[in-house]
Amino acid sequence: MGRTSDAREKILDAARTLIELRGYSALGVAEICKAAGVPKGSFYYFFASKEALALAVIDEHWAAQERDWKRILSGQAPPLQRLRRLFEATEATMRTGQRSCGSVAGCLFGNLTLELSNQTEAIRVRLQEIFDVQVEMIEAVIAEAVAREEAGVSDTRQAARSVVAQLEGQVLFAKLYNDPQRMGALWAGCLALLGADAPGEVAAGL
Amino acid sequence: MGRTSDAREKILDAARTLIELRGYSALGVAEICKAAGVPKGSFYYFFASKEALALAVIDEHWAAQERDWKRILSGQAPPLQRLRRLFEATEATMRTGQRSCGSVAGCLFGNLTLELSNQTEAIRVRLQEIFDVQVEMIEAVIAEAVAREEAGVSDTRQAARSVVAQLEGQVLFAKLYNDPQRMGALWAGCLALLGADAPGEVAAGL
Repeated sequence: MGRTSDAREKILDAARTLIELRGYSALGVAEICKAAGVPKGSFYYFFASKEALALAVIDEHWAAQERDWKRILSGQAPPLQRLRRLFEATEATMRTGQRSCGSVAGCLFGNLTLELSNQTEAIRVRLQEIFDVQVEMIEAVIAEAVAREEAGVSDTRQAARSVVAQLEGQVLFAKLYNDPQRMGALWAGCLALLGADAPGEVAAGL
Repeated sequence: MGRTSDAREKILDAARTLIELRGYSALGVAEICKAAGVPKGSFYYFFASKEALALAVIDEHWAAQERDWKRILSGQAPPLQRLRRLFEATEATMRTGQRSCGSVAGCLFGNLTLELSNQTEAIRVRLQEIFDVQVEMIEAVIAEAVAREEAGVSDTRQAARSVVAQLEGQVLFAKLYNDPQRMGALWAGCLALLGADAPGEVAAGL
């Protein structure tokens, strides 16, 4: 039992790393199993297909990221400070990834969206669900900031979508220029999007 | 001569369509030649490698897009109106693509950035050059708007990067949800990023 679930975890870990490095389409099951150090025969014991594996990789990555987002966004600090910490944590994750593999891998969900969302309906639906939850989590924080008169937007849903779009766009540039510092512009952009025109005060409160 | 360059154009057209539909990694030279209706042997007469083909696809696509951007951004209308027209043209392109192939293909450069930029240095450099030019073109318009006191940003370069990031992020969502209307939020987000807080007036001027 222990060894069986070990093999599944090893396949998932190897697949996530390889997908981050080289995308999904370029990978074969044999290569994933070789990287995981498990016999190819065991792959189909755990996963019905390469697509099923991709969905499991997405689910596992999101389970961890959702935990992080909830922890960061649900603290006692003022809402915009929590949002800023989320961006700082995202940038820190990119720095860690860059140190370990030499290049910024970007956002697994953004990468798979642009690579696969118009090819694989199951993956598209799963990624939509994840981004919907991300937008909802950000929207709740924006609504808090609006209630405290620390943000000035009328449509909190649209503002949350713009913030997540800005995040994905800046992550794209961080990957393209292999430079996590590109994320530095995110906070100023976010404040502008939220009609929160006192970035100095918020920053000073951190 | 005519037939030779026809074959090159056919390969380029087929490759661009296939890359937009399925990404770069999943494609093989044989498949591209089959879709182009040219013998596989002729591929290497025109292109040293699949990577060389991808670079040619990128260059050709950018040559056309840069022409469009220059035309739209260099008109006599006020700067923010020209910027808005650029976004409207981008959304229109996505609608046309969706009508012809059923799904929003997104931005070729954004797609290839997330799929390839940490794998293929030559492609990374080319995509960096393209996004650098996009940012410069947008920055020039923002600087005009600032000079006319129609925008209120101090760092026009950073503002331009945020606008292009916002564009790429919203295109990502348009692709994920297969819905060009997602781009509708782009203009409000852009005005916020530019500290241009009179969207009603600008819209009314169109």
